[in-house]
Amino acid sequence: MKQLISVLVENQSGVLSKISGLFARRGFNIDSLAVGVTEDKTVSRITMLADSGNSVAEQMEKQLNKLVPVIKVRTFEENEVVSKELALIKVSATNKNRGEIRDIVDMMHTRIIDMSTSTVTIEICDSPEKIDILQDMMRPFGIKEVARTGVVSLQKGSLNI
Amino acid sequence: MKQLISVLVENQSGVLSKISGLFARRGFNIDSLAVGVTEDKTVSRITMLADSGNSVAEQMEKQLNKLVPVIKVRTFEENEVVSKELALIKVSATNKNRGEIRDIVDMMHTRIIDMSTSTVTIEICDSPEKIDILQDMMRPFGIKEVARTGVVSLQKGSLNI
Repeated sequence: MKQLISVLVENQSGVLSKISGLFARRGFNIDSLAVGVTEDKTVSRITMLADSGNSVAEQMEKQLNKLVPVIKVRTFEENEVVSKELALIKVSATNKNRGEIRDIVDMMHTRIIDMSTSTVTIEICDSPEKIDILQDMMRPFGIKEVARTGVVSLQKGSLNI
Repeated sequence: MKQLISVLVENQSGVLSKISGLFARRGFNIDSLAVGVTEDKTVSRITMLADSGNSVAEQMEKQLNKLVPVIKVRTFEENEVVSKELALIKVSATNKNRGEIRDIVDMMHTRIIDMSTSTVTIEICDSPEKIDILQDMMRPFGIKEVARTGVVSLQKGSLNI
């Protein structure tokens, strides 16, 4: 089962090193990771998606809470949160097939943010699964590059993480 | 000047720990960081935005290239790439002001992805500067939570990073 771990940390040099070091020592594998500032510029939020059981996630939550720059840790199952990921996908395109690519881009509510004579770059902001589908759809045209952010999540409803 | 560093790494436990440890030892401060899989599932791309001069970025590029799981490193200035970030912003909302919030959401081409009787959660996928503006616009309503992914980038045109 996928577990989401949201960690609020003080925004200082070396925090990520401490956290990723803890994960490496325990052999805890992370599927995706995103680090961004919060409304308070001195605090960053680290969002991690990991393929693990409840007990492993609880263990990690305890370990993380012991680290000094960590302010708050919460773990969630996927259905408790709204989750989104962003991807930029650069695809080979010719005058002949650019229209086919545009049709898929429109149908998946994504958009083209850069073009050249031989490529288009698509922006998609959706669930990780939908991004996988767009990559599947674009593969026949030739994917040149992909940059994905990793998933970020907020708890559904009015509660805070 | 903001420098973008894009690193392709083997997708294995401990990679992030090695990289963030290198940065911490050198006191190299990162503004944002995003880690996601690429088209090749065994390879992840780490995108970092750092506030540093060219010479420091070059130094980091050299150091990163020496790390074993690193496949490729490139540094860019902001105008060479298309860059986007994703943010989820949970804002307090009442029946009285929900319409005002929706007007701003529409004007900034963002969307509401979750609601409760007292909150709305907005998704924005844009430049980091535009996300800052939306946060400024939402602050008077009361921002409850923010989750940002950190910026991801692809080189403009047909070239690959």
